[in-house]
Amino acid sequence: MEKKSGPLHRRQILQAGLAGVGAAASNQVVAADTVTAAMRTPGRPMSLYGMPSPHEADVQRIIAAAYPEVSPGTGSSRTPLHLLDGTITPAGLHFERHHNGVPDIDASTHRLLIHGLVTQALEFSIDDLMRYPRTSRIAFIECAGNSGGNGSAQPPQTSAGAIHGLLSCSEWTGVKLGFLLDEAGIDPHATWMIAEGGDASGLSRSIPLAQAREEGILALFQNGERLRPEQGYPLRLLMPGWEGNLNIKWLHRIKLTDGPVYAKDETSKYTELQPNGIARQFDLIMGAKSVILRPSVGMIVPSAGYYEISGLAWSGHGRIARVEITMDGGQTWTNAELTGPVLPQATCRFRLPWEWDGKPTVLQSRATDEKGNTQPTHAALMAQRVSGQIYHYNAIQAWQIIAGGAVKNVHV
Amino acid sequence: MEKKSGPLHRRQILQAGLAGVGAAASNQVVAADTVTAAMRTPGRPMSLYGMPSPHEADVQRIIAAAYPEVSPGTGSSRTPLHLLDGTITPAGLHFERHHNGVPDIDASTHRLLIHGLVTQALEFSIDDLMRYPRTSRIAFIECAGNSGGNGSAQPPQTSAGAIHGLLSCSEWTGVKLGFLLDEAGIDPHATWMIAEGGDASGLSRSIPLAQAREEGILALFQNGERLRPEQGYPLRLLMPGWEGNLNIKWLHRIKLTDGPVYAKDETSKYTELQPNGIARQFDLIMGAKSVILRPSVGMIVPSAGYYEISGLAWSGHGRIARVEITMDGGQTWTNAELTGPVLPQATCRFRLPWEWDGKPTVLQSRATDEKGNTQPTHAALMAQRVSGQIYHYNAIQAWQIIAGGAVKNVHV
Repeated sequence: MEKKSGPLHRRQILQAGLAGVGAAASNQVVAADTVTAAMRTPGRPMSLYGMPSPHEADVQRIIAAAYPEVSPGTGSSRTPLHLLDGTITPAGLHFERHHNGVPDIDASTHRLLIHGLVTQALEFSIDDLMRYPRTSRIAFIECAGNSGGNGSAQPPQTSAGAIHGLLSCSEWTGVKLGFLLDEAGIDPHATWMIAEGGDASGLSRSIPLAQAREEGILALFQNGERLRPEQGYPLRLLMPGWEGNLNIKWLHRIKLTDGPVYAKDETSKYTELQPNGIARQFDLIMGAKSVILRPSVGMIVPSAGYYEISGLAWSGHGRIARVEITMDGGQTWTNAELTGPVLPQATCRFRLPWEWDGKPTVLQSRATDEKGNTQPTHAALMAQRVSGQIYHYNAIQAWQIIAGGAVKNVHV
Repeated sequence: MEKKSGPLHRRQILQAGLAGVGAAASNQVVAADTVTAAMRTPGRPMSLYGMPSPHEADVQRIIAAAYPEVSPGTGSSRTPLHLLDGTITPAGLHFERHHNGVPDIDASTHRLLIHGLVTQALEFSIDDLMRYPRTSRIAFIECAGNSGGNGSAQPPQTSAGAIHGLLSCSEWTGVKLGFLLDEAGIDPHATWMIAEGGDASGLSRSIPLAQAREEGILALFQNGERLRPEQGYPLRLLMPGWEGNLNIKWLHRIKLTDGPVYAKDETSKYTELQPNGIARQFDLIMGAKSVILRPSVGMIVPSAGYYEISGLAWSGHGRIARVEITMDGGQTWTNAELTGPVLPQATCRFRLPWEWDGKPTVLQSRATDEKGNTQPTHAALMAQRVSGQIYHYNAIQAWQIIAGGAVKNVHV
């Protein structure tokens, strides 16, 4: 097989493996003693709630506290995307973004109030909500500030999770918000709603009512079990594909209004200053995006040979239609394989076989969703931005494999 | 609206809610003070690995140790299915079935040996396997002995999880087994393979080679993160839809053979004694099945009114085509709604609105898969069985709602 860098077809991988030219480091062996030490000692008994292997203790969220001394609960922790595979994020590694910590809430005393421009204000206990019909769907949540560090002139040389890990994907189950809004009775003058979290930051966002009624879910379960405290236990507003901070955690109040209220959380932040000096507000849907996770910064590509390029793609606008990869600076693009089912507003896993010739190369992925939204280059995105505008960064991520196999984050 | 028991259409639920005749216990309120106690105190900071709320501490696996004194690691723990929703099982609650405990294995020293009727025996470290192309899919694993307790003349009055919880569903990621078998080179005489676990029971099963090559996955990841120890860390054979015990945990050896080896784990157990005195072996694929989880034993249906019936359906033969529910002893059946995507060899969630008139009633669900396999009645299944044959019990589960709303497990 010709040894040059580039994408491989599946058949070629097999040929590479069989011919021994692939990277698969398998060895001929003689099976002398196949009884291992672990097979000679009884293992530990069953347990009530399982945890990861202690040998995987370094697979952790990546914490960034904004003001660790004065407000340790303000900041974020990121999903170590580069250490995971598949599309589901285990709840223990779902990213966090808190504005004043994780409240300790007892579900039995928690209430949801729906009021404002409604026929009849309603209050629900969690037990009340548990009586309603439920729906389930797999959906990502991405913080509006995710990947913002890539907006720097010097791209951060940190892991893919540290850069892009304000993104996680779960199966959520709950009650359709529209069902309860209709029960309260929507006043004809109501056009927006304000959702407020029951945490010490009282995080509040204004959300257009029509979409909230149509798409909103009052999530009670995450990946099968009840929500985790860091994801809003006992109740979270899920707005699939919208800015992460609209997915209000510890949801305790929804007020219907005739316009946005310009809450502190949509004026002091989560706005986008434009070059003309005007700040854009309510840019609410997360764009099409992808990131190659393997290889990425912190990994070493040990030698020339076969590898699988693998990563995640997602879009707030719907399903991912394709992910293309270039290894030659954008001259040619190859479609990666998407692992089905490809679901709307959910991450999908893409994979592409790759034969590396050991010479410096740059890998870039570009996602396009079913509505035609795609990813700009870094230069094109930054040309529209002022310095310090970190939100909705969805430019193409470029990883350079340098001599020796180390991976660098580069702006190309 | 007429108040009689039966399935409801979605529109009727809404009418019930709006008219106040539904069960939704919402109250008109005046919003006096909407700042809760949790909003007055900063919450706890971000954490490296999240855990469920302490207020959900009773959502645990249900442990049954077979010989707690002499072999505490022999037995099972079941998924509390009745306390969960959606389709994904969180890894911490995935069922366990161990024959001599959970070994502590360091991935860096673990090896997989492929030998026997191959051109070249191969040995792989986990790092080696990580270099191969991967695939992801959502699939259930069900123990062959799941639901066996329902074979008793007196049906167990325990929770749905305690009866049916040797069933869990995860997103698995790993390397296609066929890829490595082909690399080793399959001898033309090889028709079966023996897969052996690296635990102290050395659990071994014979598996037809053609299907193993086609369907087998060497799973490295479960719900995004590396396998949990209880599910086979660092390597598990995944055979989607086949008996749970074929999904060999702590996989360390695969030997290609010209027939089954009749290992202890497929002779002393996992065989099915027939009324004619002959034991059936290698009944390997799990049948079509469903269970209503809400309501189920241990729950109280508090009063007449609206409820959602909800449960899980699955089949080892493919996708679930439909789940029907009867509330009148099988005279009429109503199709439940299936939450998409409906995937092959994966659990799917079914839901059906239900108006209860407060009188005793029996709820039964019946799943049918895309190949036409369906569930027998309890009586039909038991007519083919001898006492004590617990494997592959997939009869229709019947729950009786008695006066006062308690739920009983009944054979009808």
